[in-house]
Amino acid sequence: MKFGGTSVADIGRLEHVALKVRRQVEAGHQVAVVVSAMAGVTNQLVGYAKALGGVESLPEYDAVVSTGEQITTALLALALQQIGVPAQSFMGWQIPIKTDNCHGRATIQSIETQSLEVCWKEGIVPIVAGFQGVNSHHRITTLGRGGSDTTAVAIAAAVKADRCDIYTDVDGVYTADPRIVPFARKLDEISYAEMLELAAQGAKVLHPRSVGKAMMSDVPVQVLSSFEDKPGTMVTSSAQLVEVGISGVTHSTGWLKLTVGVGDKLSTNIKKVRSLLGKADIPHEMMVMNMIQGGHIDLFIPHGHLTWVLMVLEEHKIASESQISVISDLAKVTLVGRGLITENGYSQKLLQAMKNLDFSTYLATLTTQKFSIGVHEAQACELVRYLHYHFNLDQINDNSPKTMAAGL
Amino acid sequence: MKFGGTSVADIGRLEHVALKVRRQVEAGHQVAVVVSAMAGVTNQLVGYAKALGGVESLPEYDAVVSTGEQITTALLALALQQIGVPAQSFMGWQIPIKTDNCHGRATIQSIETQSLEVCWKEGIVPIVAGFQGVNSHHRITTLGRGGSDTTAVAIAAAVKADRCDIYTDVDGVYTADPRIVPFARKLDEISYAEMLELAAQGAKVLHPRSVGKAMMSDVPVQVLSSFEDKPGTMVTSSAQLVEVGISGVTHSTGWLKLTVGVGDKLSTNIKKVRSLLGKADIPHEMMVMNMIQGGHIDLFIPHGHLTWVLMVLEEHKIASESQISVISDLAKVTLVGRGLITENGYSQKLLQAMKNLDFSTYLATLTTQKFSIGVHEAQACELVRYLHYHFNLDQINDNSPKTMAAGL
Repeated sequence: MKFGGTSVADIGRLEHVALKVRRQVEAGHQVAVVVSAMAGVTNQLVGYAKALGGVESLPEYDAVVSTGEQITTALLALALQQIGVPAQSFMGWQIPIKTDNCHGRATIQSIETQSLEVCWKEGIVPIVAGFQGVNSHHRITTLGRGGSDTTAVAIAAAVKADRCDIYTDVDGVYTADPRIVPFARKLDEISYAEMLELAAQGAKVLHPRSVGKAMMSDVPVQVLSSFEDKPGTMVTSSAQLVEVGISGVTHSTGWLKLTVGVGDKLSTNIKKVRSLLGKADIPHEMMVMNMIQGGHIDLFIPHGHLTWVLMVLEEHKIASESQISVISDLAKVTLVGRGLITENGYSQKLLQAMKNLDFSTYLATLTTQKFSIGVHEAQACELVRYLHYHFNLDQINDNSPKTMAAGL
Repeated sequence: MKFGGTSVADIGRLEHVALKVRRQVEAGHQVAVVVSAMAGVTNQLVGYAKALGGVESLPEYDAVVSTGEQITTALLALALQQIGVPAQSFMGWQIPIKTDNCHGRATIQSIETQSLEVCWKEGIVPIVAGFQGVNSHHRITTLGRGGSDTTAVAIAAAVKADRCDIYTDVDGVYTADPRIVPFARKLDEISYAEMLELAAQGAKVLHPRSVGKAMMSDVPVQVLSSFEDKPGTMVTSSAQLVEVGISGVTHSTGWLKLTVGVGDKLSTNIKKVRSLLGKADIPHEMMVMNMIQGGHIDLFIPHGHLTWVLMVLEEHKIASESQISVISDLAKVTLVGRGLITENGYSQKLLQAMKNLDFSTYLATLTTQKFSIGVHEAQACELVRYLHYHFNLDQINDNSPKTMAAGL
């Protein structure tokens, strides 16, 4: 059971979480709990650290911000003890959760399960601090954004858990963000691959890293509400049995479109660009060769990377600044599904949908798992609503993974 | 160098502390720094823990409250790095500072000095979290009140430091609390034994535990201001060379006087009472046998222990409640010095002072190191001022350790 920052935001909510944990224990489950810092605490700690140049010294930055989870962990142990459930807090170094040395965005290398097993044997619920580990120099590390989800999935994998329940402030994974699309529908089930795409393309309910980890370890993950008592969305590999369908539509903002004139060496240069962006960990799945206008590459990159990309393109003699035009304030809207290319019906429907759009699109790419469209930021929500409507995502119909599945 | 909560209360003060540390490093000293939690932080954490019954589970209470020092430690390391001084934070478990298992008031058992020595070799200033350690079960422990002073003295002893500087919000040890006695004089030097008495009798500048530890290890301790640049008060064994004198006058409130009728078995019972109070760690140095009124014991105890003491006296058949009278709201005013009994002049002076008092005294005891008087709480400050004036403590005269010393 993993509880995020809003679920443990104050003493009252911690007591509520304790009751939820007790219910699982009373149902006969062996439970480990992972918690984030109380909402707001991490930001305060980050503020302190930044005021003293903390970002330049990540080890000390990690020592500061990891205290947030330490506090919640011990407080939840207290809340459980108070309602008669033996519980014990564990910091990353006490398990230990061993990570590499990349302070601020460390990767978990191994988790010792012995202390957890001793707890279960003695009827104690272990409460583990999310987001943190310890490196080989006995220094505290943090896992970066989405770190507590990753901790939860990693522990579930290490102890071969039946399920990893991620309690959050929404009650599951939706076909779109309900704040944007009022008719968005909660999914009962979604595959790892689609969840990974949704997360990577902007859906904030789970961090892509934790989904990737769950997929690799085949840990069933449930996303559910910490405020309501009802089932959430199951993220599993069995949902992959469904071969065709659209799971959802999402978007992210802060993108730029680069048009890079490269002349006749188009295919050599596109390989070079892909390799350079790949090495720098810059998203580059929206990139198309364009033979017209003397040969150029159309490319979406996140706003913050512009300076670096321009510099690198010039340095590697791919294009000088005068050969590059930039359109800013763009968003990327993405439909996530399965079989989008392979099944004829879908690519046709997508083309049709594109034709009907009455606003400018700057770039569009289609893979078997997703269809991404670049539009102006101001129009992104409208496009999300349009696609959701156009593909009847509010209905459990032939676009939904549930009824499409021949085998289910 | 040890800095308390008010010295590190915000980012600005932490930067100020960093400058102080740099000055010592630039002067060629090998420095280790011990810090407390930022003022107010511990109280907030204690509030959280208490709201969840934290006092009943001291291990989790310790895990919560120890985060306060962790934050300051890492932030000070950042502040030092920012002004060009390499620094590294250490939690108790990272040194490690090993303690017993008494959560909430643990005792330091050993300190590994290797990590500190590695730091010094590499030109790094180690910043150590005060108030905390780790027990044999890898659980975080806290040392209780005055814990950070104790950490500082213990580290100084472990590395055989030339000096342990305790930076605080006062600029040294005074002959009395300057808020009560405006003419109180700062002492340049005081012996461990006297400092221990002053601390035990209510002077808040150092915790008795840390003074006791300094005395046992013979670590010279300096109490000085973190806000001003001037020497403080040295607490050393060499100050013991001075054989006679009064160092200061202090007081504490919240005392009760018990008059326990014990009949003819006076000396047997006083031994019993002393043993019972000793075992329960209740102060009992103000206790006198009184042969008049059929034999009774006069005894000062802290307010909070009354119920327990009454119960125990009855249980051990020393006296029933009807044989005990209680006077409450009393204070204990104590003159601390050396040779108060052995040197004729002093006991005479003390008797004279007592005679001149024009308010009720409830009990008075004299040992070679202190003279304690019980009075009503409302009169305590007046008595402190009277004694300070009567013994000319504002003057460096024959009552002061400085000029009395034949050898200095």
